[in-house]
Amino acid sequence: MSLDKKLGKLVGRYRIARPANFRLADFDPADTGGLGIGKDEARKVVADHGRRLATLQEKLYAQDKWSVLMILQGMDAAGKDGIVEHVLYGVNPLGCDVHSFKAPNAEELDHNYLWRVARRLPERGRIGIFNRSHYEECLVVRVHPEILAKQKLPPPLVTRNIWKERFEDICAFERHLVRNGTVVLKFHLRISKEEQRRRFLDRLDDPDKRWKFAMGDVAERGLWNKYMAAYQDMIRQTSIPEAPWIVVPADHKWFARLLVSLALVEAMERLDLKFPLAGEHSPAELKKVASALEAEGRAEAGARRAKSRD
Amino acid sequence: MSLDKKLGKLVGRYRIARPANFRLADFDPADTGGLGIGKDEARKVVADHGRRLATLQEKLYAQDKWSVLMILQGMDAAGKDGIVEHVLYGVNPLGCDVHSFKAPNAEELDHNYLWRVARRLPERGRIGIFNRSHYEECLVVRVHPEILAKQKLPPPLVTRNIWKERFEDICAFERHLVRNGTVVLKFHLRISKEEQRRRFLDRLDDPDKRWKFAMGDVAERGLWNKYMAAYQDMIRQTSIPEAPWIVVPADHKWFARLLVSLALVEAMERLDLKFPLAGEHSPAELKKVASALEAEGRAEAGARRAKSRD
Repeated sequence: MSLDKKLGKLVGRYRIARPANFRLADFDPADTGGLGIGKDEARKVVADHGRRLATLQEKLYAQDKWSVLMILQGMDAAGKDGIVEHVLYGVNPLGCDVHSFKAPNAEELDHNYLWRVARRLPERGRIGIFNRSHYEECLVVRVHPEILAKQKLPPPLVTRNIWKERFEDICAFERHLVRNGTVVLKFHLRISKEEQRRRFLDRLDDPDKRWKFAMGDVAERGLWNKYMAAYQDMIRQTSIPEAPWIVVPADHKWFARLLVSLALVEAMERLDLKFPLAGEHSPAELKKVASALEAEGRAEAGARRAKSRD
Repeated sequence: MSLDKKLGKLVGRYRIARPANFRLADFDPADTGGLGIGKDEARKVVADHGRRLATLQEKLYAQDKWSVLMILQGMDAAGKDGIVEHVLYGVNPLGCDVHSFKAPNAEELDHNYLWRVARRLPERGRIGIFNRSHYEECLVVRVHPEILAKQKLPPPLVTRNIWKERFEDICAFERHLVRNGTVVLKFHLRISKEEQRRRFLDRLDDPDKRWKFAMGDVAERGLWNKYMAAYQDMIRQTSIPEAPWIVVPADHKWFARLLVSLALVEAMERLDLKFPLAGEHSPAELKKVASALEAEGRAEAGARRAKSRD
């Protein structure tokens, strides 16, 4: 099978179409898709996708009807920032918004948890990237009950149904977005605990990376199994046909970037984007405008000549 | 039956608990609830409710957990502005936000239709009032298909399921709000076509009211039956147990105001609001702080005396 053919089938293998049976353990973080290529070849493919994306994004922007929302979720050091940097390299920042969600601030806690996310949604014509997202409400908040206690929810509303309700509400929210023109792409970057350890050590060794390291990150490693259980349940409950999760093996950065760029290009190519101008103005109209602009140029040149004769 | 008892049972008669069988025609716009009272007595009840609301709202604000969202929908001149003015008279504006939704602007059209509504939701501790709302998406937009065409939706998404989808998404949106601490109260102010005619004539006669009149309002009267059909379907599809519609007979302004104020007071009293301070600080702590402040006052007075002796 040619590489193109293999790539054409790749995303489907990691998209969760039957969430009820989903098990995180079935996805090896070190998987590289059996493509028979290495880092360098993969980089070339990603760069090629980057050029295609740039054109697709120009059309998306010009057409101004669809928008694309890319959600990135993963443990610390899973490579979220690197995905944004490499997959979207070369795409015009004018049509691209990245937002990283940190712990909610006081104003955000004074609203429902989807409020701050809804405000950051990409406009029509744009690609929006959420580095972490509303899914933290079913991950870090679930693993740390003390965070839930601080969310100012009226106590009678905090019942044991709360996660089921959150999953339901999030699915409904995304379904609404999809129905109104937003393509929702959700990526879980899956790394192994051992690979995270190596990356943390790298961060500590490298002065250019040290700023990314926070003491709290190491403490979270102690909760690894709880996080994995939360991820598995979240993917089971929120992989809806309108917006399924894609589980991205991420121990090899080159493979994670390849898979995400492939999924993004495929999704945008399915939209059948077109530059809209020709449809709205007839060729005759366009010719008339061009003639008028040319005539204006001639008149101005004539005036300049007349002036230089004075 | 005493008036209090009658009032206690009133709201339930207009709350749509069995939406499948709902027929707009079963609700007479001129109904006054058989209370055996007139305008003046009703005004006294509303004023009394206003005082209770002011206290409830203070507690809501202090407790900072719940919020209340009041949605007002009705034909032009149904009395929406009057409800806000009279029912919330005396409530501290600090804890109360009113927002009137007009035709969406360009930035709003660049997002899904719930985006602009979500941004205006009341914070915890506040009462928010929507004068018109996201329901216009299933009313004016439904009656005027040309508005839908201008919403920049990708054409493949505009199918004949669109109203069903909108009802579903709106219910899910409100359910999410309720689950996160917002009490959602939805009022349809129901006037007769004849009463609207009278009120329009009043507006034209009275220089103080003429600014409220727009030529387009008269044109909409021609679509009266279409609007009524849209209202009926909307109430059937979006009266969920978490946030049922209340149909308010509104030909008599005094009755509409009475019913809305009653529903608001009842809903807030059900929340069992309390000033939170006592719970968080022990009486001993509070006494200590008071003693310290008193000692500070004595020390300052002593210093002043010493200074005056200088």
